[in-house]
Amino acid sequence: MIVSQEKIHEIGIRLFTACGASPEHAEIVIRELIIASLMGLNSHGIMRILQYLQQVEEGQIKPDAPIQTIFETEVSAIVDCNWNFGMVCASKMTEIVYEKASVHYIACAASRHCNHIGRLGAYTQMLAEKGMFAYAVTNSSRHGHFVSPFGGIDGRLATNPISYAVPAFPNPIVFDMSTSMIAEGKIRFLRDKGEYLPGGYILDSFGNVTNDPNEFYGPPRGTILPFGGEQGYKGFGLSLMVEILGSALSGVALTPENEKDQYINGFFILAIHPALFGADQVFAKNIEVLKNYILSSRPRKGTRGPMMPGELDFENIVKNKTQGLEIPDSVMDGILTIAYKKYGFRFEPI
Amino acid sequence: MIVSQEKIHEIGIRLFTACGASPEHAEIVIRELIIASLMGLNSHGIMRILQYLQQVEEGQIKPDAPIQTIFETEVSAIVDCNWNFGMVCASKMTEIVYEKASVHYIACAASRHCNHIGRLGAYTQMLAEKGMFAYAVTNSSRHGHFVSPFGGIDGRLATNPISYAVPAFPNPIVFDMSTSMIAEGKIRFLRDKGEYLPGGYILDSFGNVTNDPNEFYGPPRGTILPFGGEQGYKGFGLSLMVEILGSALSGVALTPENEKDQYINGFFILAIHPALFGADQVFAKNIEVLKNYILSSRPRKGTRGPMMPGELDFENIVKNKTQGLEIPDSVMDGILTIAYKKYGFRFEPI
Repeated sequence: MIVSQEKIHEIGIRLFTACGASPEHAEIVIRELIIASLMGLNSHGIMRILQYLQQVEEGQIKPDAPIQTIFETEVSAIVDCNWNFGMVCASKMTEIVYEKASVHYIACAASRHCNHIGRLGAYTQMLAEKGMFAYAVTNSSRHGHFVSPFGGIDGRLATNPISYAVPAFPNPIVFDMSTSMIAEGKIRFLRDKGEYLPGGYILDSFGNVTNDPNEFYGPPRGTILPFGGEQGYKGFGLSLMVEILGSALSGVALTPENEKDQYINGFFILAIHPALFGADQVFAKNIEVLKNYILSSRPRKGTRGPMMPGELDFENIVKNKTQGLEIPDSVMDGILTIAYKKYGFRFEPI
Repeated sequence: MIVSQEKIHEIGIRLFTACGASPEHAEIVIRELIIASLMGLNSHGIMRILQYLQQVEEGQIKPDAPIQTIFETEVSAIVDCNWNFGMVCASKMTEIVYEKASVHYIACAASRHCNHIGRLGAYTQMLAEKGMFAYAVTNSSRHGHFVSPFGGIDGRLATNPISYAVPAFPNPIVFDMSTSMIAEGKIRFLRDKGEYLPGGYILDSFGNVTNDPNEFYGPPRGTILPFGGEQGYKGFGLSLMVEILGSALSGVALTPENEKDQYINGFFILAIHPALFGADQVFAKNIEVLKNYILSSRPRKGTRGPMMPGELDFENIVKNKTQGLEIPDSVMDGILTIAYKKYGFRFEPI
């Protein structure tokens, strides 16, 4: 069904505050979910409302938990999210690196006990909108280790995304890639539709390339290949770096194995103020020159030509703001049911 | 022909000092070229002696030029290499970030007027060998813009490599990838042998995929595709980040277009001391646990199983140290000829 973003916003605020989040925190979570859906990134959008409400009930998300800086220097912080909403934690960490980088021109932060942070590009984008270069990664605990290392056939890494963003006009440049051939959510989507994958994306549990999503889910479970096909050592190497920044470097040997921690994200974010190299007066201009140079390339046949990272996402926002958000009936039903059964809310007919 | 590394070292030192480099600088250059060749990375190895000697003659490399920090904060520096050897500059910058990161736990540097720096992984490796996490990129001036943006057919970026390294036992983990499907040097190599490329690596000047290296060289010239095939927007996005870090962020709009600057590298290096997150006591152990976990994956059929980034390079060093370096006769002849004609050196028969 088609739902306006205002309606979803109202529902989100009421439900998240009802389950214990402050209005400010509820606003962060629902805002990020709406933006992801507006961008067309549905797997990180509205459908997560249901998951988060369930996680609150299970005690995995603790909406009133304090978010604490447990270690810091002038240019760094480890932030213990204490199982609050991942988006609340990650947003707080982004503010912390912004404050520190405003003074020292470079700063970074790493998380502890952090739930699902959603769209990684949300946080680099926040810093780019405030004039900084930002770089972020996030790993996931072993539960999410769907991706095999290059040359291996057992899951050892998550889809480990990398994002960076820089200020640009009219929208920042926001890059956000997974280091695997495909996201697990997309395989699930194809399986549910009874469809096959392109070749070279996944392995069955014996390490054979397969097109069949059922071979991936098993049991026994298969794996997703690292990004890059025959050059998958590149995707693997980048993924390993995400794992290192997301946990080893900040003092965690490997994200924990126990069930409680299955949704953990090891989030790392770095902010650089252009004054770090004395370039604050020319940075915006430099990006503009670079952008125009890239976009001046002749388009490849059958494409609309080169685009800046994130450009399509911003176009989708404009399109979907007028069209409203398309939300699967099952997701909307699930949200309305939990709203009534658990919190006694009846929302106006949508 | 097969030449011992001792012999190449002797030749390199004599020639580079004869053309004006200090013994210390000559040592840096020849050492890095030898290591690259020992690793099997011939395009960044001994064959460059000839190129560098020619560039000295042309005035592109100025072996006695001062290397100056022209801007700095406690955690950053812009280093003007003044056209000294790129490896001398990049090594100096690596020392600078090491010193700064030893005190402030994070530091970075960017270059100006820097010649070819050779193997990017050399510098991240130096920092990893001293216990730090290191990340580095380098762009190239427009002369080297062989790579088309995703969706475009004109060269707008160089092969823009990314490297990171972390301490590990017995060798550091050293990752070094280009963000394009193939290096220009490899296309040249195939053309000279009269061979074809795999599909999906290059475009002709009209933007059609081709296997023929001659279509790439033209004229008119074709382009190399960004890394990633159908997901080439990922390789393109990473390459754009390299361009931003290598020049826009440090105050350079685009690497210059004029002939003199054609060999310029915009080198950016970041060092993180594990004390940044208070993890100095556990970092090495964390990497060991992670490494063992990755390597515990069952191997994929037809491979030797998962490997750490850089592992093959370190194996090649051991192998080639005993076997000696295989150098094409034409390269060795060129070096010996310039040695005699320009500097009057006759080396012992090799």
